[in-house]
Amino acid sequence: MNANPKFLAATAHVDDAAIKPLPNSRKVYVGELKVPMREVSQADTPTMFGGEKNPPVFVYDCSGPYTDPAAKIDIRSGLPALREPWILARNDTELLKEPSSRFGKERLADPKLAELRFNLKRNPRKGTGNVSQMHYARKGIVTPEMEFISIRENLQREQYIESLRAGGKTGQKMLELMLKQHRGESFGAAIPDLITPEFVRSEVARGRAIIPANINHPESEPMIIGRNFLVKINANIGNSAVSSGIGEEVEKMTWSIRWGGDTVMDLSTGKHIHETREWIIRNSPVPIGTVPIYQALEKVDGKAEDLTWEIYRDTLIEQAEQGVDYFTIHAGVLLRYVPMTATRMTGIVSRGGSIMAKWCLSHHKESFLYTHFEDICEIMKAYDVSFSLGDGLRPGSGYDANDEAQLSELRTLGELTTVAWKHDVQVMIEGPGHVPMQLIKENMDIQLKECHEAPFYTLGPLTTDIAPGYDHITSAIGAAQIGWYGTAMLCYVTPKEHLGLPNKKDVKDGIMAYKIAAHAADLAKGHPGAQIRDNAVSKARFEFRWDDQFNLGLDPDTAKDFHDETLPKDSMKVAHFCSMCGPHFCSMKITQDVRDYVEKGMQEKSVEFVRKGGEIYNKT
Amino acid sequence: MNANPKFLAATAHVDDAAIKPLPNSRKVYVGELKVPMREVSQADTPTMFGGEKNPPVFVYDCSGPYTDPAAKIDIRSGLPALREPWILARNDTELLKEPSSRFGKERLADPKLAELRFNLKRNPRKGTGNVSQMHYARKGIVTPEMEFISIRENLQREQYIESLRAGGKTGQKMLELMLKQHRGESFGAAIPDLITPEFVRSEVARGRAIIPANINHPESEPMIIGRNFLVKINANIGNSAVSSGIGEEVEKMTWSIRWGGDTVMDLSTGKHIHETREWIIRNSPVPIGTVPIYQALEKVDGKAEDLTWEIYRDTLIEQAEQGVDYFTIHAGVLLRYVPMTATRMTGIVSRGGSIMAKWCLSHHKESFLYTHFEDICEIMKAYDVSFSLGDGLRPGSGYDANDEAQLSELRTLGELTTVAWKHDVQVMIEGPGHVPMQLIKENMDIQLKECHEAPFYTLGPLTTDIAPGYDHITSAIGAAQIGWYGTAMLCYVTPKEHLGLPNKKDVKDGIMAYKIAAHAADLAKGHPGAQIRDNAVSKARFEFRWDDQFNLGLDPDTAKDFHDETLPKDSMKVAHFCSMCGPHFCSMKITQDVRDYVEKGMQEKSVEFVRKGGEIYNKT
Repeated sequence: MNANPKFLAATAHVDDAAIKPLPNSRKVYVGELKVPMREVSQADTPTMFGGEKNPPVFVYDCSGPYTDPAAKIDIRSGLPALREPWILARNDTELLKEPSSRFGKERLADPKLAELRFNLKRNPRKGTGNVSQMHYARKGIVTPEMEFISIRENLQREQYIESLRAGGKTGQKMLELMLKQHRGESFGAAIPDLITPEFVRSEVARGRAIIPANINHPESEPMIIGRNFLVKINANIGNSAVSSGIGEEVEKMTWSIRWGGDTVMDLSTGKHIHETREWIIRNSPVPIGTVPIYQALEKVDGKAEDLTWEIYRDTLIEQAEQGVDYFTIHAGVLLRYVPMTATRMTGIVSRGGSIMAKWCLSHHKESFLYTHFEDICEIMKAYDVSFSLGDGLRPGSGYDANDEAQLSELRTLGELTTVAWKHDVQVMIEGPGHVPMQLIKENMDIQLKECHEAPFYTLGPLTTDIAPGYDHITSAIGAAQIGWYGTAMLCYVTPKEHLGLPNKKDVKDGIMAYKIAAHAADLAKGHPGAQIRDNAVSKARFEFRWDDQFNLGLDPDTAKDFHDETLPKDSMKVAHFCSMCGPHFCSMKITQDVRDYVEKGMQEKSVEFVRKGGEIYNKT
Repeated sequence: MNANPKFLAATAHVDDAAIKPLPNSRKVYVGELKVPMREVSQADTPTMFGGEKNPPVFVYDCSGPYTDPAAKIDIRSGLPALREPWILARNDTELLKEPSSRFGKERLADPKLAELRFNLKRNPRKGTGNVSQMHYARKGIVTPEMEFISIRENLQREQYIESLRAGGKTGQKMLELMLKQHRGESFGAAIPDLITPEFVRSEVARGRAIIPANINHPESEPMIIGRNFLVKINANIGNSAVSSGIGEEVEKMTWSIRWGGDTVMDLSTGKHIHETREWIIRNSPVPIGTVPIYQALEKVDGKAEDLTWEIYRDTLIEQAEQGVDYFTIHAGVLLRYVPMTATRMTGIVSRGGSIMAKWCLSHHKESFLYTHFEDICEIMKAYDVSFSLGDGLRPGSGYDANDEAQLSELRTLGELTTVAWKHDVQVMIEGPGHVPMQLIKENMDIQLKECHEAPFYTLGPLTTDIAPGYDHITSAIGAAQIGWYGTAMLCYVTPKEHLGLPNKKDVKDGIMAYKIAAHAADLAKGHPGAQIRDNAVSKARFEFRWDDQFNLGLDPDTAKDFHDETLPKDSMKVAHFCSMCGPHFCSMKITQDVRDYVEKGMQEKSVEFVRKGGEIYNKT
């Protein structure tokens, strides 16, 4: 058999670059639930600036065990199933003897796939009833997943404050400095100062947040998507018929989460789609999303009109039993909306959307995604797969933004949300795409209203179409804004968008642009404590703690490399200037002089002031 | 003498990469004033999509003669003095026998500088009265500069429409498609459908726009900065004591304008600052800005407290007679504002601001920039140098954004604007810096109010501080927003910001991020015709005209390289899919199928519809 030569199970390994801990960072596990966090330690402030201790800063960490030197990494074994005891304790699932899907059985039985197959020793599991986090939430149950998330979202702020307080008088001054944050403008989001497990539960129960957590993906570290939590980002990976193999995709996943991908979508469309997915899920600490219609289409040799509910259903079950955490389902592409796209500049650009449109027109009836929507809900709730209701009619150009086709589909997604919620199935809503800045808020507001505040999950949006090769930037501009206005998760766009398949560098560039957008949105919304990391970088910058500035940043490696390009000597790392200005012109240095001068001057002056009874700034 | 080994006048040349015309682009010169524009030609639409002609798109072009294969480029001779006849015709200037500044005379007389010196055969010129564009504007005179700008800003839209109309019935359809634009939200900006010379004049007279056009820089192609015109971007270049030489800086200038820098600031602080500047100006078709205090400080060996009005004045005249088009002058750093910075996170980060703060404190009086402001106006108007009133107290971190120090200085800049306008001297106002998203609008609104709508010229702003190495992105997010809200020119930030001196790649990356931000802002404001280029890219994309998609973009080279990385074969350039999706999954292709189907289906259906008297979408 012609297996992918790039990947054989026997020799599978993860790239060293993806598992090295980040500099000056330590993986910590908080509490009994062992919630992972990255602790970034800092140097003391140089004596000339005060000499105080700078306590470590805790940052959100979705990189999983890979960045823990104490963890044993072997992608052939996969990650530990940390949620397994919680799932078992709920006692509402059963172990299956074999996969329930026809396709799953076939792949397992095919001896030619042995050398590609991940050797999972655990059988799939299925709920005996509804096992969705929303179902528990609505029954008033706080799950360990919710507790885990509450700790994760608080980012050890209490502990950080404690460390500052421990610094005595200096600590009190530090406290004021490091915790200061501008008031946000939240457009109706209401983020509490402290995220409690009960708050997590109530948001999930309300449908305003989702916890994508398939019972067959016990390796995942729980995370939440909702506008009253930190804004999340998704990274897409996936091979295509033209290029890339299994090994490369697993590597892209570990690479994505290293830099901050909160979820990963496997959009593979090539050969061995089933096996690729298995490897990714077994090694992923973050939720995995897919678009099942892609695989269903492969099963009918790419002929959209040959798709049937039966084939699609089998695919949903196949993937649900592998552990996919959320499914993009384009159930809002209704027959009557399709002709609306005929006058567009760029028609239908969503792959799923165009497949469904073609199917609808071929059969002249509503798609099985729509007609079988409640059947789909039944499957979703038995594994706790969340809906990501796909925007098959999203605009493919600024020209088509917020048009009738897009907004009609959005209203239908809102109706389907109500149906899913009736089944206690978790839902988020996918959004555009391409939207010029002045239309972004409108789009967000319509989504909140029509979809009853179900989390919005947008691709960008790109704010202009004139920069192929730079769409991570055209879209980060839109993503930051829509994140601010209320979008809960931002799907990244890489520089290769519209041009080709992203490589590792592109993946990282896309993630960086989106981590920036998400964080800028958190700041703008006034997410409690969001500014701590900014303040820490700024303080390090001002005090010429170069290494701390690099290490507290999103990408310490690049920051350090850039610095070293013009000032490579190690001694320069403590130099009080950089090559931008040179030694004479460093404004930071001059400021410090000014500050000393003012403080000294103020003391002298205050004595003089009292004596003279007046006017400040008389020349002495 | 230890001249910079990297650069000798005798062997000076411009890098080939900077003078190659962009692909499928032709430099055109419009009208009697020969206004330069870039005409990007396009392929016909493939027959399967309609086969129509796609007329060329005209884009704004600040690259000067360098991208014109017919132009003779020799940087030792400099560019042709295209504005010279206009200046002479006004008959209000005199030719000086020698430079008026002491320093200018010294440099000219120093034989050791011969091998570094640009050999300018023309003597400096000075106005016999006020020669500012604002002065003419207020007298009701429409200068050739204003006429040039009016043509430039309209981007040959009339001609483009003509070409579309020429296409008959298809042309009419094309007209609707290509000219469609979303309504903007302009926040009080009022951009006319057609920019007339009279409109340019009135905006300059009102102080709402400036035309930086020193009479000693006749090589420059007139451009305008104002919120009722296209948003402009500035690129900073300049060596420092630590690295980079003259040749490199000239190259950075030609490189910057190739990719879209509308003005260039020479921030050199090292040796040969005078000679470097001369080379840059003589070869620059775009306005050049400087911060004269940097050079003044060099003249007193870096000791801020030793600066005097006389030295500064001599520097202003020296630079004005070289042809600098705008001066950053930090005249708003008042003594009483300096202590306000002592409680900041990052003190004073503007180099000019910290120099002036130090001077003020050392002397315990207001700076000579403030006390001699009217004397400065007298110099400015004799050469038509525009003020760029510097924000010496801009925030150096999100923490310090919109604080008392920043806003106090801004109010003073507003007062100084009134003084300058009294002298008919052109003014723009510099702005931050670091501002989280939710505070950007507030900053813009205060500037418009306090500075009487004088153009705002901002650095970014950076919307978060946590991404050293990616500040072109953290700031492009803020730049797009503030540009939308009313900023007239955006000063770029490169990925090396805070880390080191940018190289050519960084310069290009910074420019790209800022061209995107500026254009996204133009679209959002509803600048007439701004969407034409977006529509053209989108149409090319939809029709698989890969080369047109690349060539209409901001950076054809990178777009093509990215595409070729995964699909390198030339035959693929006409392929109806890309490696993102592969041949089966191309949604563009499926959409076209859907469109054909709908059109065909609609005809069949309409007959059937009439016959059946009813219900659409009955299954046939």
